[in-house]
Amino acid sequence: MSDHDVIVIGAGLAGLTAAWRLVQEGVDAVVLEARDRVGGRTLNHHLDDGQVVEAGGQFIGPTQDRILRLAGELGVETFLANTVGESVYVRNGRSRRYRGDIPPDLGALPAIGIATTRLNRMSAQVPVHAPWTASRAGKWDSMTLESWLRSSTPGSGAVDLINIFLGSAFGGAARDSSLLFALWYIATFGNETHPGTLERGIGVARGAQESRFVGGSQELSLRLAARLGDRVRLSTPVDSVRQQTGRVIVGSGTDTVSADAVVVAVPPVLASRIDWEPGLPVQQQGVLQRLPFGALMKCEAIYPEPFWREDGLNGSATFRNGSAICSMFDNTPPSGSPGILMGFLGGPNWHTWSARPARERRGAVLRSFASALGTRALRPTTYFEQDWTSEQWTLGGPTSVAAPGVTTAYGGWHGKRFGRVHWAGAELSPYWNGFMDGAVRSGEQVAKDIVGDN
Amino acid sequence: MSDHDVIVIGAGLAGLTAAWRLVQEGVDAVVLEARDRVGGRTLNHHLDDGQVVEAGGQFIGPTQDRILRLAGELGVETFLANTVGESVYVRNGRSRRYRGDIPPDLGALPAIGIATTRLNRMSAQVPVHAPWTASRAGKWDSMTLESWLRSSTPGSGAVDLINIFLGSAFGGAARDSSLLFALWYIATFGNETHPGTLERGIGVARGAQESRFVGGSQELSLRLAARLGDRVRLSTPVDSVRQQTGRVIVGSGTDTVSADAVVVAVPPVLASRIDWEPGLPVQQQGVLQRLPFGALMKCEAIYPEPFWREDGLNGSATFRNGSAICSMFDNTPPSGSPGILMGFLGGPNWHTWSARPARERRGAVLRSFASALGTRALRPTTYFEQDWTSEQWTLGGPTSVAAPGVTTAYGGWHGKRFGRVHWAGAELSPYWNGFMDGAVRSGEQVAKDIVGDN
Repeated sequence: MSDHDVIVIGAGLAGLTAAWRLVQEGVDAVVLEARDRVGGRTLNHHLDDGQVVEAGGQFIGPTQDRILRLAGELGVETFLANTVGESVYVRNGRSRRYRGDIPPDLGALPAIGIATTRLNRMSAQVPVHAPWTASRAGKWDSMTLESWLRSSTPGSGAVDLINIFLGSAFGGAARDSSLLFALWYIATFGNETHPGTLERGIGVARGAQESRFVGGSQELSLRLAARLGDRVRLSTPVDSVRQQTGRVIVGSGTDTVSADAVVVAVPPVLASRIDWEPGLPVQQQGVLQRLPFGALMKCEAIYPEPFWREDGLNGSATFRNGSAICSMFDNTPPSGSPGILMGFLGGPNWHTWSARPARERRGAVLRSFASALGTRALRPTTYFEQDWTSEQWTLGGPTSVAAPGVTTAYGGWHGKRFGRVHWAGAELSPYWNGFMDGAVRSGEQVAKDIVGDN
Repeated sequence: MSDHDVIVIGAGLAGLTAAWRLVQEGVDAVVLEARDRVGGRTLNHHLDDGQVVEAGGQFIGPTQDRILRLAGELGVETFLANTVGESVYVRNGRSRRYRGDIPPDLGALPAIGIATTRLNRMSAQVPVHAPWTASRAGKWDSMTLESWLRSSTPGSGAVDLINIFLGSAFGGAARDSSLLFALWYIATFGNETHPGTLERGIGVARGAQESRFVGGSQELSLRLAARLGDRVRLSTPVDSVRQQTGRVIVGSGTDTVSADAVVVAVPPVLASRIDWEPGLPVQQQGVLQRLPFGALMKCEAIYPEPFWREDGLNGSATFRNGSAICSMFDNTPPSGSPGILMGFLGGPNWHTWSARPARERRGAVLRSFASALGTRALRPTTYFEQDWTSEQWTLGGPTSVAAPGVTTAYGGWHGKRFGRVHWAGAELSPYWNGFMDGAVRSGEQVAKDIVGDN
């Protein structure tokens, strides 16, 4: 049994950041990772020519200071996502070009305007560190975001367009989320000095989809792991955490490791499955049962060139009704070739398509691409999918969403220190919750907490 | 490695019923149970004089034919819950006597009348075998039951009184449930010939709280286990299910058992934690992540005699606001002595009280009892609590509740056969879902399915 100061469970961005910040402070930390790779919900897909494209979390933007600082330290550069040219809005198969972040749906614009203004105003009343203390938390946690949208805006435009965003952001829809959770989520689209706004979350230019990492987002985890060296142990799924007087023993199969403290940096649904001794506080067990992952698949098609650029298009499209995907982006590497399109198949679209034959789904996705960019999109050289729900060590994506009743009843227990057990993960950040930046923030915070304890 | 026709995982009412019906058909079945006891969510608490009182599920009533038939076969008798005398309604500490199932809250009566009529009418449109096919399923699954109650009834009376019922029925509140799930739940308060009604679910006389089992509800499981003999293996928590060509291998620690088929008869949240190979279909993994247990504790006080009976009271009380418990019942054994009061501390009440010191909670519960029955209730000879959330092999109670969006997106996958894996449990019954009768029904159904396959 090896013995350390701190054991970090999970080598995603949160866990690796926590371990690295601890090691920088002279703490003896090890990271136990179930997979044979690091990076958690970030994953680089390797192209034939040696370049990579992102198959998991990928976008970054302004106010995401922590991940940008970390990237700077690690020498990972960023580049602007392609915004040259026009986006396309496809509704019931009919396409229309536009600029900016709001689709040109004249019927829906008033509803979207009302929803945006009111959601921003309400979210400003939600304390990011403790959303359950908002003065109207009880009321806002009694209903779904969809109920609120339907009662507050005319028609179905606001629900439909918000659902396009949530298809990728939640892997779900407005009915899956408590209004309070959604308002909190918006409030986290910022940092200590810039309060969150819906626009910053959904936006490309000046928004959360503004930039990408050169070499793919997994590069951050790969470089952190390289610096941590043999402190990172792959293929070591943790199945038990036993707290004893003075120590904590972490078990993986027949191996055990002991430490003064543990950082659990795996998603809520996986944390709940560890065998805890003593058992987790019942309220903590309760909250882990109540943060299911969304359902999300990324579908990517590779073409010799980004042919849409010569048509004045930026490769972004938004689909309302009648499409297999909810939104798409130009995922071409910074070299400009090959051309890559990435479609989010999440939430309701995932439910429609995930159980169908792969060939049929591919066809539907490519027809969606073609409805926005023309028939050349139907003939990629390669096509691949990444279904995050089928990843044994993630079980969904991109983040965990709280239904009504959960935040007010259990929120205060999520991430609460339990003896020698500390918590990290994208779901635990008061800024950019559920995003890569949130993962980094949570990792830095837990390292600070642990070092502060000593 | 022992080898059988069928392995049943879980020796609760569903699993034991399934095994027993299979054995009756000549099938070689074994039951693997994690606990050192059988009965799952039913549990007899032993009194000093050798009698028992129920610490888990306990009530039965009309149309619960399957559990009544099983009890008859096993020689377990029933007796009427005490309905002699008046019930008490306590609001903000002030008590008032009443008869029947509807508390005498004059301000809330119109709202309750409207809610009952409309909920019954809507639930009649929900097919019990496939609630997601209801013609208005999409709309009803977009909102919480609370949202619907607030938009459909005046004041807060309907929400408050429905929440008293759901505190024990869901271990939750109207905001935790999808309207569609709640309508389906009501639709299941019946059988093949008597459609479900809200009144039958909440009622004592002619309702689901009408009767109890002599010797306690766990007696059914104890007698089933006695008949199954060494086919039931206790203290055998299952951690893996591996399907191979022609066989399925179930692992518990280093032991393995093989069979032609497996019946998983543990609650959804526990089923999701088994190590599956091949992995569960992603949709099935998704639904198991989305059926969290409610939060419920039973608090029982024992007195020399049921003193309230001489005051013309039946020991039942309903509490609106300002009480630690939501409802209470006379839990005296059929012999008539000692006198026992049982209070449900569930949902919002559980959140308020579960983390407080046991002594303080006991005081609050006894003050609730006393507010209904007088100060003699403050001085029991014994007091005990059963918190179902702290049971490692249950993790909550009394049943699993679906939030908005879950039933329409995932409902069709819940309980769907997966190769050699079949499913049973109270959560899988189209009648009395979540009740003991539902558990028995699901066990009988799965046995029938398996025998029919051969």
